[in-house]
Amino acid sequence: MRPVAIGIDIGGTNTKFGIADAHGHILASDSISSREHENPEDFVGAVHEAVAGLIKEVAEPLELVGIGVGAPNANYFKGTIEFAPNLRWRGVIPLAELFRKFYDLPVVVTNDANAAAIGEMIYGGAKGMRDFVIITLGTGVGSGFVANGQLIYGHDGFAGEFGHVTAVRGGRMCTCGRKGCVETYASARGVVLTVHELLTGTQQDSRLKHILPEDMTPKDVYQAAEAGDSIAREAFEYTGKILGESLSDMVAITSPEAIFFFGGVARAGDWILEPTQRHMEANLLSIFRNKVKFIPSKLPESDAAILGACSLVWKELGH
Amino acid sequence: MRPVAIGIDIGGTNTKFGIADAHGHILASDSISSREHENPEDFVGAVHEAVAGLIKEVAEPLELVGIGVGAPNANYFKGTIEFAPNLRWRGVIPLAELFRKFYDLPVVVTNDANAAAIGEMIYGGAKGMRDFVIITLGTGVGSGFVANGQLIYGHDGFAGEFGHVTAVRGGRMCTCGRKGCVETYASARGVVLTVHELLTGTQQDSRLKHILPEDMTPKDVYQAAEAGDSIAREAFEYTGKILGESLSDMVAITSPEAIFFFGGVARAGDWILEPTQRHMEANLLSIFRNKVKFIPSKLPESDAAILGACSLVWKELGH
Repeated sequence: MRPVAIGIDIGGTNTKFGIADAHGHILASDSISSREHENPEDFVGAVHEAVAGLIKEVAEPLELVGIGVGAPNANYFKGTIEFAPNLRWRGVIPLAELFRKFYDLPVVVTNDANAAAIGEMIYGGAKGMRDFVIITLGTGVGSGFVANGQLIYGHDGFAGEFGHVTAVRGGRMCTCGRKGCVETYASARGVVLTVHELLTGTQQDSRLKHILPEDMTPKDVYQAAEAGDSIAREAFEYTGKILGESLSDMVAITSPEAIFFFGGVARAGDWILEPTQRHMEANLLSIFRNKVKFIPSKLPESDAAILGACSLVWKELGH
Repeated sequence: MRPVAIGIDIGGTNTKFGIADAHGHILASDSISSREHENPEDFVGAVHEAVAGLIKEVAEPLELVGIGVGAPNANYFKGTIEFAPNLRWRGVIPLAELFRKFYDLPVVVTNDANAAAIGEMIYGGAKGMRDFVIITLGTGVGSGFVANGQLIYGHDGFAGEFGHVTAVRGGRMCTCGRKGCVETYASARGVVLTVHELLTGTQQDSRLKHILPEDMTPKDVYQAAEAGDSIAREAFEYTGKILGESLSDMVAITSPEAIFFFGGVARAGDWILEPTQRHMEANLLSIFRNKVKFIPSKLPESDAAILGACSLVWKELGH
């Protein structure tokens, strides 16, 4: 029997799940809507049913060793989702408990960026590293900090909120109610807002002028930068400055061997990573300079969420 | 035979050392100048000789289990002191190696703030805590971050430089060559500089006007605050604002159960801790609010350095 983990990634819109072995081979995967079920109980039931279908689909006997779940606002110690603004279920959801009604298996729950960090360590570019950081630049900005080979969960399970480190005091309004968070600059929306601000302040022509802000994605900005658009390039330069300065403070605390980047904004590659690294280096205390590697995530984009969730089982349950 | 550790704290001016057991009882202690010996070899020889005297002094048979050394710019992994601006020895000093010429014992070297963190965990107020931070507010600002019960050393042994997190972009010039570091505001010199700036900008009377800035200490500012001096109180309020805002970013990353404060500035008690906590709370992401304890260090001031160094032996060598 092949030992496998069930990995579940709960996103604001869709929930992806799959079955993977310890080497990162996904044997089967599928997804359902995260919004369709009013009760989290019904949602977990639907996931269970769909996973049962996947298990049947795999034409070999499987040993299920555990369930890993990545979710927004997830608490590792309590196995809960707490007050997630992007999910339809309010309050505290006892997610691990709900899954254990269907499975006699250990369930590990953590936030999606933490799952990505473990995924990178077990299956990706951080194999063998004991001190690194993963930064996810997507709809929000998330992070997972690994020190001494262990994820930093903090005393309450909520550690690793780099997206809500204050990058600019009194800066842009954040959805969290505070101002100037890294997320307001380095998320997909942050980059688009920067483009919008730059366009508003210039007569200069730009292909980005012809895209409505609400339709614009980091991919548009990337393509414009590639095509030589100076507004697009300036937007990445500015984003890199804010992000790099904040990262230099994080390096002073945890001194990681490498910083991994993941998510839609990171897909702009060197357009965003080069200025980020340059500004980080320019702000680093001398003992930290020219040491920290910048690495795009090595997890395959399409499977990363499921692999991250599965990796929790191998890492945290000691398999 | 009583098992004991030798603890050595190398400061810019003096080096303190002592012999303590696992319960934190110091059996004997002494100090020598850190500046008298041109070569680090001679210095280590002098420490060895003085410690031999202490061992004789103790009227019972001792089992020496290891040597712990706290020193500025110390590297835990390499056992070195590297480019310490406050010591007279230049370059990289192989400190652990030098001690092992005299002792057939394990030697653990780390920076003084990390030693203080372990001291707090083994002997002080952080007993049983797995996630906490210690901030030392003295000549400089140092820090030790503990996550999952382990000190965060980082991949290179230099982690935990909270004093060089940028509190104010483009702010006060720091001795590290960068601008706006926490240390330039929250160190002893930083507090005095704030008083000086406040005095320069006001006609208001203050008893601090009669002390030359180069003679002023945080103790003077504390005493003035106690006596109702509004400039002194404003200086602590301002220091607490800068420090609290920067701490809120650290909490977002490591989510500690408690923050311990140590050193000359922290001795001002609530005059500095109350505004620091208030500004930290005001800047925290909601999930972290009203959770983080603020605790003055529980280590006895006079013995803290030696106990911190000794605790390295018990913690890191697994005794």
